[in-house]
Amino acid sequence: MYRSPIKHCKNCGTAVLYRVPDDGDTKERAVCPACGTIHYENPLNVVGTVPHLGDRVLLCKRNIEPRWGKWTLPAGFMELNETTAQGAARETDEEAGAQFEMEDLFSVLNVERVGQVHLFYRARLLSDQFNPGHETIEARLFTEAEIPWEEIAFKTVKATLERYFDDRRKGSYGIHVLDIS
Amino acid sequence: MYRSPIKHCKNCGTAVLYRVPDDGDTKERAVCPACGTIHYENPLNVVGTVPHLGDRVLLCKRNIEPRWGKWTLPAGFMELNETTAQGAARETDEEAGAQFEMEDLFSVLNVERVGQVHLFYRARLLSDQFNPGHETIEARLFTEAEIPWEEIAFKTVKATLERYFDDRRKGSYGIHVLDIS
Repeated sequence: MYRSPIKHCKNCGTAVLYRVPDDGDTKERAVCPACGTIHYENPLNVVGTVPHLGDRVLLCKRNIEPRWGKWTLPAGFMELNETTAQGAARETDEEAGAQFEMEDLFSVLNVERVGQVHLFYRARLLSDQFNPGHETIEARLFTEAEIPWEEIAFKTVKATLERYFDDRRKGSYGIHVLDIS
Repeated sequence: MYRSPIKHCKNCGTAVLYRVPDDGDTKERAVCPACGTIHYENPLNVVGTVPHLGDRVLLCKRNIEPRWGKWTLPAGFMELNETTAQGAARETDEEAGAQFEMEDLFSVLNVERVGQVHLFYRARLLSDQFNPGHETIEARLFTEAEIPWEEIAFKTVKATLERYFDDRRKGSYGIHVLDIS
């Protein structure tokens, strides 16, 4: 995700200066020379699910950039006023229009390069009928052998799918904590 | 954490309007009527550790608000250009000046009320000597019986400590995913 730089103060609109604040901080922040507001920029969480039905997993073909036309697990930015699990469920509803039951946290993936942490939950599908929203061209179930591995939109999705099918073979699901380059 | 509202555009300084953007979004955002910039506000991650040495855990007495004078595990806001584990290690160094070895992720706690997700890692202390920074009045080791349970700064810290000592008794550490009201 591209983050546009902070040029003006969110409180009063004055042009900000980048400097280390005087409060003991050690990092440069966008500081307002007029009202003193300090603007922090921090990593964002992306939350999603691994929706599964028998030996198949649900993937969504993206109708939005980035990675238009590539396949992904349903996921998106966590919003205020929701938990990680609620956000993951919301995205699964919005992007796939799936009927499902939320299960446990499955993967926590640091994507330091873009300032994101991705968290995926397992979700048991209750139906093989989907009603995807405008962000999705098509929602479809894939067995491990059918997964279009070369057409997966994000490394975090590929890593999560690989661990999911590994754990499924073992018959026991863990929580996988990974750093993605 | 109190978040000051977005009143002006970060790109051009114009006063923003709160409305649902025209891009298919369903939530109100601060939108700039001049340059069109959409401002998103999302939950923040707080990352920290459970530093342990034998049957004792390291707590820090806070020298900053909120909860000045209360005891906490070393933790703070995750920054850009670090992973969750790197941020947890940085905070442990900054707040306690401890020597330690990072271990596995231990707890993931949703604090929906304040738009935060707290992630704690276990960390094995290599020394009982600490050199706390300006945010800490005192860093001290406590057995479970000695923990000042009524003087713990945050619910996420209390919940994490309780699970830590439970798991220690069992001799096996899990990853605990909890919602904190």
